[in-house]
Amino acid sequence: MIAGRYDALRERVLQANLALGQSGLVILTWGNVSEADRVAGVFAIKPSGVRYEGMKLEDIVVVSLETGEVVEGRRRPSSDTPTHLHLYRAWEMVGGICHCHSTYATAYAQACVRLPCLGTTHADTFYGDVPVTRALKAQEIENAYEDATGAAIVDAFKKADPQDVPAVFVRQHGPFTWGVDGMEAFEHALILEETAHIAHVQILFGASQTMALGYPNEGKLDKKLLEKHYMRKHGAAATYGQ
Amino acid sequence: MIAGRYDALRERVLQANLALGQSGLVILTWGNVSEADRVAGVFAIKPSGVRYEGMKLEDIVVVSLETGEVVEGRRRPSSDTPTHLHLYRAWEMVGGICHCHSTYATAYAQACVRLPCLGTTHADTFYGDVPVTRALKAQEIENAYEDATGAAIVDAFKKADPQDVPAVFVRQHGPFTWGVDGMEAFEHALILEETAHIAHVQILFGASQTMALGYPNEGKLDKKLLEKHYMRKHGAAATYGQ
Amino acid sequence: MIAGRYDALRERVLQANLALGQSGLVILTWGNVSEADRVAGVFAIKPSGVRYEGMKLEDIVVVSLETGEVVEGRRRPSSDTPTHLHLYRAWEMVGGICHCHSTYATAYAQACVRLPCLGTTHADTFYGDVPVTRALKAQEIENAYEDATGAAIVDAFKKADPQDVPAVFVRQHGPFTWGVDGMEAFEHALILEETAHIAHVQILFGASQTMALGYPNEGKLDKKLLEKHYMRKHGAAATYGQ
Amino acid sequence: MIAGRYDALRERVLQANLALGQSGLVILTWGNVSEADRVAGVFAIKPSGVRYEGMKLEDIVVVSLETGEVVEGRRRPSSDTPTHLHLYRAWEMVGGICHCHSTYATAYAQACVRLPCLGTTHADTFYGDVPVTRALKAQEIENAYEDATGAAIVDAFKKADPQDVPAVFVRQHGPFTWGVDGMEAFEHALILEETAHIAHVQILFGASQTMALGYPNEGKLDKKLLEKHYMRKHGAAATYGQ
Repeated sequence: MIAGRYDALRERVLQANLALGQSGLVILTWGNVSEADRVAGVFAIKPSGVRYEGMKLEDIVVVSLETGEVVEGRRRPSSDTPTHLHLYRAWEMVGGICHCHSTYATAYAQACVRLPCLGTTHADTFYGDVPVTRALKAQEIENAYEDATGAAIVDAFKKADPQDVPAVFVRQHGPFTWGVDGMEAFEHALILEETAHIAHVQILFGASQTMALGYPNEGKLDKKLLEKHYMRKHGAAATYGQ
Repeated sequence: MIAGRYDALRERVLQANLALGQSGLVILTWGNVSEADRVAGVFAIKPSGVRYEGMKLEDIVVVSLETGEVVEGRRRPSSDTPTHLHLYRAWEMVGGICHCHSTYATAYAQACVRLPCLGTTHADTFYGDVPVTRALKAQEIENAYEDATGAAIVDAFKKADPQDVPAVFVRQHGPFTWGVDGMEAFEHALILEETAHIAHVQILFGASQTMALGYPNEGKLDKKLLEKHYMRKHGAAATYGQ
Repeated sequence: MIAGRYDALRERVLQANLALGQSGLVILTWGNVSEADRVAGVFAIKPSGVRYEGMKLEDIVVVSLETGEVVEGRRRPSSDTPTHLHLYRAWEMVGGICHCHSTYATAYAQACVRLPCLGTTHADTFYGDVPVTRALKAQEIENAYEDATGAAIVDAFKKADPQDVPAVFVRQHGPFTWGVDGMEAFEHALILEETAHIAHVQILFGASQTMALGYPNEGKLDKKLLEKHYMRKHGAAATYGQ
Repeated sequence: MIAGRYDALRERVLQANLALGQSGLVILTWGNVSEADRVAGVFAIKPSGVRYEGMKLEDIVVVSLETGEVVEGRRRPSSDTPTHLHLYRAWEMVGGICHCHSTYATAYAQACVRLPCLGTTHADTFYGDVPVTRALKAQEIENAYEDATGAAIVDAFKKADPQDVPAVFVRQHGPFTWGVDGMEAFEHALILEETAHIAHVQILFGASQTMALGYPNEGKLDKKLLEKHYMRKHGAAATYGQ
C-alpha cells in the first residue's frame, strides 16, 4: 500500500477505535471514534459494520469537513458520520468524537435522565450535569436523521459550553463524547460510563434511606462473630496464614 | 480422521460454539449453537455436556431434519436438540439457533417479563418486544418436553414474524435466539443479553423518579468542590499531570 | 521432592483450587477446596493464607479423617479445615467441599435469605431451595467455632438430602458447596453464584411490577425511531455495513 | 540509570501501583499507592497523571516526610500527595496508603453512607464500620485542599483506631485505605470494594422483604419442571452428557 496523505490521522483514529474495542464499552461493532484535521479540512472515522479486531489503517475512512464526501478510503464510513460532521462544523474547538452504547450511559439515555454531578470523580472531568438531547420531530427522523441527531446535540449546549461538559446522552439512543482528539473523546466515553455506573449504584442508597429499608434480617454482625473473625486474622492469637 | 460430508457445516458450528464459550454468556457447558444445511436436510449442533475449551470438529453432531436421528458424529447431541429441530421444521427461513442461560436474559425469562423496546440499541436488532412463551401443560413437561418447548416458542410468534424479532424468553427457563446462520444466532444472544442488561439498569431510574427517591444525603456536589476538582485538571492553573 | 503417598489426591485438590482462583469467585485467598480419599481415610485441602497463583502440589495439606491431624504437607491447613472435617464425617457420600466468599452468594448469606428455585437453571443442579444455617450460640462461637459451623450446616439438612441440594449459605458468612470430588464442589460454587446473581436481577422486576414502577419517562421507543433504526440495518434500504 | 538510594522502596511502590492498575479498581490513572520508609524519613508515591502500563521505577517519586518536598525522581508526584503526607505524619503506625475511585466504594463515599459490618467477610479485615469523613469548610477547599482532606480523615478516627479499620470514605470523593506497606494498603482497597459490593447487593433483599415484593409473576418453579430438569441430569434416567 502506498503511503496516503492522511496516514498519520488514520493511524490515530485506528488506535482510538482499537482502544474502544478493547475497553469493554462495546460489543460487536457498537461504537465509533473519529478525529478531525482542521488544517487539512477532513476527519477520519471508523468504517460501518466492521469489527475492531483485525481492523487496519486502510479500513479507516477520511471525510471532507466541507462536503461530507469520502476523500480517502474504500470502505463505507460509519452510519453515524453525518452526526460527527454536524458536530465538527458547529464546534470548531472539538478535535475528536466518540459514540458507543455502553451499558450505564445508554440506560441514562434511554431513561432520558440527566447525570447530575454527585462527586469529585464526575467533577474531575465534567463541569456540571451531563444533559439529555430533545426529542426529534417526526420529519427529522425521516429525513437526514443522523444530521438531525447532531443538531439536537448542539441544541443541548445552548446554555453550556461543550468544552466544560464533553458528553451528552442522545435521547433514547446512547452517549456521544468529544475531546481535543479521538483518544480523548474515547477516554471521556470511558469516564462517562464509570461515572454513570457509580451514580446508579448510589440510587439504591437513596431508596434505602428514603424508604427506611435498612439491611434485611439480622442486620449488623453479632459482636462475638465480629471479634472471632477479626481475631482469627489479627493480633497475637491469630490462627490464619502460615 | 477422514474428511466428512458435513465438515464445512460442523466447522462453522464449532466456531459459533467456541465464540459462545468465550463470550461471557455461559459458564461450564450452559449453552449451545446449531446451524442448518437446508439443501443437505441436516443441522449440526453442540454435543451434550462437553466443554467449549478443547472442543473439536469431530465432537459436533449432525442430525437429520427429517428424522431427527444422528447422521454423523459419535457424540450424543445437546439435550435441547428436539427444541432446535422443532424450530427448524416450523421456520424454514431460520438457518441457525442459539440457546444459553446468560444472566439478564435468564432473569427476564424467570420473571416471565417481556423485554419492551426502550431504545435504539434494541431497535437496531429487534423490531418490537421480545416475547415470553406460554406455560407448558403438565403432560407436555412429562412427554417430549424439549419438543414442547419448541412448540411453545412457535406459539409465541403467531402474531409476529420470527425474522423481525429473532429472540424469545422461554418461560422460567432462558433465552433462545436465531438468525441466518449459527454465528448470527450467537450474536443475537449477545445483543439480547446486553439489551436486557441496559433495560434492567433503567428500572432503577423508574423507581427513583416514580418514588421521588432522588440521590441520598447531600445530593449534588458542593459548587466549591466542583470548581476545585475541575480546575485542578483543567485551565491555566491546573496542577494535575506532568 | 520424593513422590508422596497422596500425590494423586493432592494434585486433584491443587487443580480444583487453581480453578477456583481463576474463576472470578474469589479475591486474594478467599476460598478453599478439599477432596477426600475415603479408602485412605484422609482429605487434602488448601493451605491457609496462601495465594492461588504459584501454588504447588507440596503446598496442599493432607489431613486424617479420623484424628483431624495433618498427615502430609508442611503447610498449615485452611482455617476452615474443622468445618470440612465435620462435613466429611457427617456425610459419607460427600467427596469434595468448596468454600468461598463470592459476591451474590455471600450477600444471600449475609441477608440470611434462602435461595428459592425460580427457574430451570437452578433446577438443573439444586433440587429445591438452598437453605441458610441457624445462628450459632455464643459458646459455639467461642469454642471450636469452625467445627460448630460444620454442625450448623448439618443441622440445616435434617429434612433435606445434601446430595439433592449440594449447597448452603452459612448465616452472615458465605456459601459452602460439595460434590463427588473437589472439582464438582467448585463447579457447584460457580453455579450457586450464577443462580444467586440471576435471582437478584429478578428482584427488581418484582419491585417494578408490584409497585407499578414501569420504565421512566417516555418508556417505549417512538414507533418512527423503531422503524428508522431497524430499517437502517435490515431490508432492501439498509445503509449499515459494507 | 545509576542505582538510587531509595530504589528498594520505589520498586515496592511500583509493584503496588502495577497491582492496583491490573486489579479492576481503576480506569486510566484513577488511583495511587504510596509507602513510607520511617527510618529514612521519606515516602514514595505514584507520579501524577501517568498510566500504570509501562510505568517504571524511575517514574516513582520520593517525598520527604519532614518537608513534603521531592527528594528523588524527576516526575511531579500525585496531586493527592499532601493527603498521604498528612496521614503519615498523624499516624506513625501506617506504612502504606492507597487511594482510588473504585465503583462501589466511591458510591458509598458519594452517598455519605457508612459501611456497616454485615458479615464475617467484613469482620475478617475491618473491626467495625467504615466511616465517612466530615464536610470540608469553604476555606479548607480553597486553601490546601488536599492537606485538609487528610485532616478530615484523621478527624474521622478520633474515637476509633485506624489500625482496626484501615479504610475510610472521603465525603463525596472516594475511598482511602492503609496498611503496614503499600501492597497491604492496595489489598485493603480491594477488600473494601468487594465488601461494599456485597453490602450493595444485600440492600435489594432488604427492599424485597420490607416491602414484601417477593419475586415477580409465577415465583417458584412448578414442581413438575423442577423434577424434569433435575432428573434430566441426575439419577438413573439422566439423559444429559455423554
